[in-house]
Amino acid sequence: MTRAAIISVGTELLMGEITNTNTVYLSQKLNDHGIDVLYHHTVGDNPARLSRVLADSLEDCDLIITTGGLGPTQDDMTKELVCEFFEDHLVMNEGWLDNLYKRYEKRGRKMTDNNRKQALLPSRSVLLFNEVGSAPGFVLRDPAGEKTICCLPGPPREMKWLYENKLSPLLAEQEGGVLCHRMLRTFGIGESSLETALLDLIDSQTDPTIATYAKEGECALRIASKRATAEEAEEAVEDMTGQVRERIGEFIYSYDDVDLVRVVADLLIEQGLTISAAESCTGGMFGAAMTDVPGISAVFDRSLVTYSNEAKMQELGVSAETLEKFGAVSEETAREMAEGVRRVSGSDIGVSVTGIAGPDGGTEEKPVGTVWYGLAMDGRTVTKKTVWNTRSRRSNRNYAVLNMLDMVRRYVGGSE
Amino acid sequence: MTRAAIISVGTELLMGEITNTNTVYLSQKLNDHGIDVLYHHTVGDNPARLSRVLADSLEDCDLIITTGGLGPTQDDMTKELVCEFFEDHLVMNEGWLDNLYKRYEKRGRKMTDNNRKQALLPSRSVLLFNEVGSAPGFVLRDPAGEKTICCLPGPPREMKWLYENKLSPLLAEQEGGVLCHRMLRTFGIGESSLETALLDLIDSQTDPTIATYAKEGECALRIASKRATAEEAEEAVEDMTGQVRERIGEFIYSYDDVDLVRVVADLLIEQGLTISAAESCTGGMFGAAMTDVPGISAVFDRSLVTYSNEAKMQELGVSAETLEKFGAVSEETAREMAEGVRRVSGSDIGVSVTGIAGPDGGTEEKPVGTVWYGLAMDGRTVTKKTVWNTRSRRSNRNYAVLNMLDMVRRYVGGSE
Repeated sequence: MTRAAIISVGTELLMGEITNTNTVYLSQKLNDHGIDVLYHHTVGDNPARLSRVLADSLEDCDLIITTGGLGPTQDDMTKELVCEFFEDHLVMNEGWLDNLYKRYEKRGRKMTDNNRKQALLPSRSVLLFNEVGSAPGFVLRDPAGEKTICCLPGPPREMKWLYENKLSPLLAEQEGGVLCHRMLRTFGIGESSLETALLDLIDSQTDPTIATYAKEGECALRIASKRATAEEAEEAVEDMTGQVRERIGEFIYSYDDVDLVRVVADLLIEQGLTISAAESCTGGMFGAAMTDVPGISAVFDRSLVTYSNEAKMQELGVSAETLEKFGAVSEETAREMAEGVRRVSGSDIGVSVTGIAGPDGGTEEKPVGTVWYGLAMDGRTVTKKTVWNTRSRRSNRNYAVLNMLDMVRRYVGGSE
Repeated sequence: MTRAAIISVGTELLMGEITNTNTVYLSQKLNDHGIDVLYHHTVGDNPARLSRVLADSLEDCDLIITTGGLGPTQDDMTKELVCEFFEDHLVMNEGWLDNLYKRYEKRGRKMTDNNRKQALLPSRSVLLFNEVGSAPGFVLRDPAGEKTICCLPGPPREMKWLYENKLSPLLAEQEGGVLCHRMLRTFGIGESSLETALLDLIDSQTDPTIATYAKEGECALRIASKRATAEEAEEAVEDMTGQVRERIGEFIYSYDDVDLVRVVADLLIEQGLTISAAESCTGGMFGAAMTDVPGISAVFDRSLVTYSNEAKMQELGVSAETLEKFGAVSEETAREMAEGVRRVSGSDIGVSVTGIAGPDGGTEEKPVGTVWYGLAMDGRTVTKKTVWNTRSRRSNRNYAVLNMLDMVRRYVGGSE
């Protein structure tokens, strides 16, 4: 398996002026080729530090990809250093020089000596013709043929163009084997419980590999295999997926890296079930999430964000007595909200949420993070309560929306 | 000048599954403290490679910040390695262990042995108390007192919270010189128009410096100065702020990096004006944005997300004739929605939005991105239309919410 490092050159990255999107792009693409990315390094336009990360990368890796440092300014020293490490020297590439002259002529500008520098390339390198910018990329091997370096320009548009059109075909040729992977998405089980449930599978992994990724309130699971043929790799991933499903199937809402809201939307559209919501603490986030899905108007009718008690009574018919006796954050209120919005809208499903999002407003009996949910359907209403352990308003609200969606998924999908 | 390296630990970063937002955040913050960031390194959960980048960083840098690798899973080995480099050993922090037990108890979950690992800390380290997650951060110095390492958890929300509340005050104490900066926020003017309006100020900058940052639909402007004393730095920033205000004042909604929604919330609370919304294309995003502000219940009453035409008629009293004659996305419908929600809720202000979010559903007359807004107050209704030039549903909806907020700001604030 080829092992790679990605080196980004650019002081603006170290200043935090721009987010490094090149690295995430290249990482995904290299992984798709079955190449194992071991390092991301970022350094400024500084020869000593670039040397250091180059030397490091060459210890572990067969393939190094650099972005940036190929421009016409005097700081750019990537090419010079690459020559030192790969025992080569720069020569003027007359073809590219001619190309540059023509570019400048076309734009009515005069080419400076600095610009000429962009046509200097290592003598043994293969030029990657850049059709969208003035700095070409190149690929160079060391004299022993063991290590490869690919230098690409820094602007994302140029880098991506060169990768897609020039570098990716070269890599596909070089790499054997076929990688297959699958991302499972779960809700309602924490990362450590997930790992405990799958401990022996994770411990004994070589191929397929299993990795867990915690996201706010949910957890993803990636299963990957690299085999001689696509069929073998797919079969290995399928087999492992089956073992995982047996253990934690009820928590898995997608086997293909689909968001929970999309899964729920598809379920509702497929079954032709209309839905309306009554929201309090989420303030419209459930409606916002649902309507993020294009085409949702087929099933989503309305969400009544009843933030005040008056609104809850007036819009949903929650009784003053219930609010007085049990409070706005209670099973009874959640129930009346769900039933109320279902009645008002005439939708098949009414779903509700009311809770204490924080950071303040909790009591001992109802701490911040306490949320009640209701779901009314077919003349029946179910309720649910969660207490999420954070004072973060944002986190509590996100978690509440996920719980509403999961409640619909389990109820409509038939798990409950 | 302190020299720093930022090390991110996490295989998911190398797989390209998530973008490394921690690094750009920390780089900005460290630069604000006048700290020079020399390296970004990313490695997976692999001790040998983490060792390598730690050793590298310690060659050049006085300060190392790591993110990730502190979680409860078996891969996490950051702490063990840090101890090796800084000649320390891990001990159980009983205070944090107790804190963990209480967290799990409160959520009705059982703590696993894995979770206990999160309370192991280097014996000489200073704990950074994490109020928003289960892994604490810590700061450790080498025995000679020359090098400092700060280890923070990987989830961005926790990392940022710990940085702002715990680490930043420590750094401020340690770093000399005084940096003063101010972030101005604008809406309604594009980045290039902004730069054109300020071209001579930007071109002649040495100190204070001016930089523009485009965010989706809005633009921020950062003015910074580093001088011998705080007074001098503040004066320089104030002076430049005055010059900028003269030129583009009407577009500036905050001189202190406050979000537009917060500015609007403060304005409403200050003036004691209640508000309700009627949303269509934004699906609840306006309500979600408003209710993101703690304490908003003093002025925010409800948002009626009327996605279907039936809901618009039933909840808001929009007339069937209007919908038929002008369509759901029209000045007339926006007007009736705003007036309707004001009448139903009895709020001082009724604000509405209806548009074509995309990616499909546009016509020649009403292309994707067409949005109508209404604002009813004091027996008067104003309307506004925007056509945002994108087919991105997310972008169109975000922009619509910002326009609703800016409309309220200008109307209530007296600019219009």
